[in-house]
Amino acid sequence: MAADLRSQAIQNPIDIAEYLFKRLQQVGVRSIHGLPGDYNLVALDYIAKVGLNWVGNCNELNAGYAADGYARVNGISAIVTTFGVGELSAVNAIAGAYSEYVPIVHIVGYPSTTAQKDGMLLHHTLGNGDFNVFSNMSRQISCAVSMINHQHEAATLIDNAIRECYLQSRPVYISLPTDMVQKKVDGDRLKTPLDLTFAPNEVEKEDYVVDVVLKYLHAARNPVILVDACAIRHRALDETHEFIKKTGIPTFVAPMGKGAVDETLPNYGGVYAGDGSNAGVRERVESADLVISIGPIKSDFNTAGFSYRISQLNTIDFHSYAVRVRYSEYPGVRMNGVLRKVTEKIGKLNIESGPNPTNEIPDEEIKSPEPTITQAWFWPRLGQWLEKGDIIITETGTANFGIWETRFPAEVKAISQVLWGSIGYATGACQGAALAAKELGIKRTILFTGDGSFQLTAQEVSTMLRNDLNPIIFVICNNGYTIERFIHGWEDKYNDVQEWKYRDLPAAFGARPDQYKTYRVDSKGGVEKLFRDEEFAGAGTKKLRFVELVMRWDDAPKALMSTTESTARRNAEN
Amino acid sequence: MAADLRSQAIQNPIDIAEYLFKRLQQVGVRSIHGLPGDYNLVALDYIAKVGLNWVGNCNELNAGYAADGYARVNGISAIVTTFGVGELSAVNAIAGAYSEYVPIVHIVGYPSTTAQKDGMLLHHTLGNGDFNVFSNMSRQISCAVSMINHQHEAATLIDNAIRECYLQSRPVYISLPTDMVQKKVDGDRLKTPLDLTFAPNEVEKEDYVVDVVLKYLHAARNPVILVDACAIRHRALDETHEFIKKTGIPTFVAPMGKGAVDETLPNYGGVYAGDGSNAGVRERVESADLVISIGPIKSDFNTAGFSYRISQLNTIDFHSYAVRVRYSEYPGVRMNGVLRKVTEKIGKLNIESGPNPTNEIPDEEIKSPEPTITQAWFWPRLGQWLEKGDIIITETGTANFGIWETRFPAEVKAISQVLWGSIGYATGACQGAALAAKELGIKRTILFTGDGSFQLTAQEVSTMLRNDLNPIIFVICNNGYTIERFIHGWEDKYNDVQEWKYRDLPAAFGARPDQYKTYRVDSKGGVEKLFRDEEFAGAGTKKLRFVELVMRWDDAPKALMSTTESTARRNAEN
Ligand SMILES: Cc1ncc(C[n+]2csc(CCOP(=O)(O)OP(=O)(O)O)c2C)c(N)n1
Ligand SMILES: Cc1ncc(C[n+]2csc(CCOP(=O)(O)OP(=O)(O)O)c2C)c(N)n1
Ligand SMILES: [Mg+2]
Ligand SMILES: [Mg+2]
Repeated sequence: MAADLRSQAIQNPIDIAEYLFKRLQQVGVRSIHGLPGDYNLVALDYIAKVGLNWVGNCNELNAGYAADGYARVNGISAIVTTFGVGELSAVNAIAGAYSEYVPIVHIVGYPSTTAQKDGMLLHHTLGNGDFNVFSNMSRQISCAVSMINHQHEAATLIDNAIRECYLQSRPVYISLPTDMVQKKVDGDRLKTPLDLTFAPNEVEKEDYVVDVVLKYLHAARNPVILVDACAIRHRALDETHEFIKKTGIPTFVAPMGKGAVDETLPNYGGVYAGDGSNAGVRERVESADLVISIGPIKSDFNTAGFSYRISQLNTIDFHSYAVRVRYSEYPGVRMNGVLRKVTEKIGKLNIESGPNPTNEIPDEEIKSPEPTITQAWFWPRLGQWLEKGDIIITETGTANFGIWETRFPAEVKAISQVLWGSIGYATGACQGAALAAKELGIKRTILFTGDGSFQLTAQEVSTMLRNDLNPIIFVICNNGYTIERFIHGWEDKYNDVQEWKYRDLPAAFGARPDQYKTYRVDSKGGVEKLFRDEEFAGAGTKKLRFVELVMRWDDAPKALMSTTESTARRNAEN
Repeated sequence: MAADLRSQAIQNPIDIAEYLFKRLQQVGVRSIHGLPGDYNLVALDYIAKVGLNWVGNCNELNAGYAADGYARVNGISAIVTTFGVGELSAVNAIAGAYSEYVPIVHIVGYPSTTAQKDGMLLHHTLGNGDFNVFSNMSRQISCAVSMINHQHEAATLIDNAIRECYLQSRPVYISLPTDMVQKKVDGDRLKTPLDLTFAPNEVEKEDYVVDVVLKYLHAARNPVILVDACAIRHRALDETHEFIKKTGIPTFVAPMGKGAVDETLPNYGGVYAGDGSNAGVRERVESADLVISIGPIKSDFNTAGFSYRISQLNTIDFHSYAVRVRYSEYPGVRMNGVLRKVTEKIGKLNIESGPNPTNEIPDEEIKSPEPTITQAWFWPRLGQWLEKGDIIITETGTANFGIWETRFPAEVKAISQVLWGSIGYATGACQGAALAAKELGIKRTILFTGDGSFQLTAQEVSTMLRNDLNPIIFVICNNGYTIERFIHGWEDKYNDVQEWKYRDLPAAFGARPDQYKTYRVDSKGGVEKLFRDEEFAGAGTKKLRFVELVMRWDDAPKALMSTTESTARRNAEN
């Protein structure tokens, strides 16, 4: 805890709000998401002042989703909301980021500390004088909560929160009461950047684990690597890539690990998800005598309904908090250091090669005279069209399962919410991802959402336009909640949605004519034409592109069918 | 607690979900708001089965707002969401209902109790096996939480929750795991309707308080009545009306009490809110020697920034939980019984009459040659146009303060969120209110929202169309967050919004041509014409009517200016 600054002369005093936003800038945040509210208005002045960009979302849930998308591309993000009404609107997005390890700094504008102390009956309260209810809710979904109630703690609390956010890769919550915004802290602290390096593993312990891993690797005859979400979210991708390239071991990804691996590598073998795996993958992975599992999250939707058939006796799990070899746990050993050393030390391995996915369209689809766009046809076809470096966002629904059948070019970043699975997420996340992409010089951000999901957060297309973003948006028009139909209620009204004229929305949201272009495709030929259209596809196109992609209401990717079958079964269990 | 039904023969077994929805039906719910999710799908089958209507909202926050609006018109409402993602999206709406005393039964579809016990890594969890995180959050904003985890408790827990919801007039939370939906409970319980009557006051205590109140009333020479939110929300309107009519005492309403009183009564005097009062009201109320304050919530926005100048020495407060006479508290004495008896026993009073608001447009506005629609002109003019029985919904922003200047015809119901103040609320609430209105045969539901607020929840216009509702929607187009500008950031970017083509939205949301009509008015003459247009104004019109009402970005109702000034001052306090 810093000494009480009020009693010292501060050499280089700056306002708390300025300190906060400068710290965010130092860790790589360029744009701040959120909405104004009277408890945060004065703080917002500092955003422009320090040279950050204010996004100005349409609502707080969408802002939270956008911050999540931004963080996944940019490394970390920040959102500002107002007390009570604003922060609670964002809670679902923050919970999603907590669940899926996405680092978001959530700054909440609070009533003044004196108003809080007096228990005043202010707007945006429950009327009971309790100003801690909402932060207590957020404690459940934040890895740190910093309540800025005293000037002398402010800088330390801010630094702690941002550091924890980055290192634990989870949301943090910072309260900023109106009377704290302009209180002074020591600006000289900013000369020392925050230390964002992971604490290294204890050397002896790490070496021990490395030896164990090497022993099993050398003994294996047909090992495989399986890369999952936490390799991405806990920043172990460099180590993972080196390991994959150097060893040449057949490598697969779990659905949540899509995009973690260079899928053009000769040893990349496709998506493994038990019953939902790519063709040939299940056989190869499940017959392996060793599975090197990097960053696994074995949730239902990530395993096509817990349909893995891999024995823990054949598995080494690499986590951010431990390594587990068969049933031996090595807690406190972070994967990064171990992977790095294993890669360094490993010699020649005897490897049986694996299958190679190729974005080949299934034979029966090629032969079919039907012009209708099928899920089985579309997703591999998409893989042929994607380009190096694309950002692909898929929504919970058919898209999130379809994408398992798409082999990516190099350096593609995939964004989805397979564990949390909140619909509406993808459209919000697309705004944030497209903004980060623009800031980082990435050319194409491509969204696939369902018609049902799109309706939850559609207005964030307005925020994209406001910020002059140019993503490519595909809305899969299939008359409602197809994924739900496959679980229960095949033709029930509750799985229908109001049929919108989706592509009329950008104009209604105030798009300038030169700012956007809309399309509707309802045949394979239409898709082919679209993919060849240079204005549509070109990385140079500055326009937001909005596509109604028409598919059948009763069509779904294979992997979705097997997953939902298992979900329906579990839900019915008595 | 009911005996364990598993060990008994149930005479008339029915499924838990059916029991739940039948109970809701019995207390007056006709439509259920919400969204499907795989953890609630099977339960949704029972909605149609028991003859209830499924609304099918666009997202859960909006569904929560809609349920709030529906409950305010109908008396109680229900919303169904899915575990985690769905329920958390609705949290802000439920918190608002808690804050403002609105009875909503929130039913959350849960994973099966076995999956919970096994701590399975399911979608929509935080990935930590904890299935109580979200219900714990909701405990803060629910007056009862019923976790249905055992068949034998289910009926009792459901009954308790619905009863508490109604009696405390606040949200309750009911978890419904997938494996509980079809478990059996005793259907014969349904033959005994829930007892929804308030426990009567202890007679001796009540009589004592009645005497005290009468003593002060008889001694008073110029008493006034001030009616506020809790008279409405705690169902004391009949008693309040009788009291006002019989005594003839000059009667005023706080902003949150708008609509509680028949404003055509000769003793109705207008809105009292300290500095934000209607003309002449402040003088009359603050010079009274006795203020009978019924259901007060003295929050900042309800008192124009705590600008009451009424002494507690001259005040009698009537609450749902107590009566307070000057500084003497009578806890446990509910207002209803006391008011009824006071009205019965009161004899002739010597009353000084008060002012009478008349929806007169201020002189300078009448004389002004400017065609621009001003806030000062519009709100009294609106009062001349309103009709008996209209439902008026106003959003936080200029609308919520403007309406203070509108004198209502008889039986008008006013809906707003003066304490919680979450923007976007009004559009969602309008869907629910318009639906309840349709069910109850009320002709006109009229919404006034700001352009900024509308953007948060715009898609609920789609739900109105889907349900064939025909509210009249006014979007005040004034280029952004005017109310915020008056607090801070007069011309700052963060108070701007993307300029939408608002009236193109109904069509984009799939309105049939015969289902809606749009308008844009930017002059007083335009408003006059619109108000005279029979198709627009007529109670018989079946169409949804959507109006862009253009006002100046820097114009606001007087009461807003004085309130925001005080808010800005408090926020800046050090
Ligand atoms: C916030 C939220 N509400 C509800 C759900 C339940 N849910 C999961 S998928 C889905 C339907 C998605 O439909 P759509 O986007 O049209 O996808 P499709 O399967 O048709 O491609 C629903 C309602 C959820 N996951 N999140
Ligand atoms: C959910 C939520 N987010 C933010 C706020 C802060 N806020 C209060 S009023 C307001 C602006 C409303 O603007 P508009 O609807 O255009 O009303 P106007 O005053 O312009 O009529 C904002 C952003 C809020 N009250 N609720
Ligand atoms: Mg769909
Ligand atoms: Mg506005």
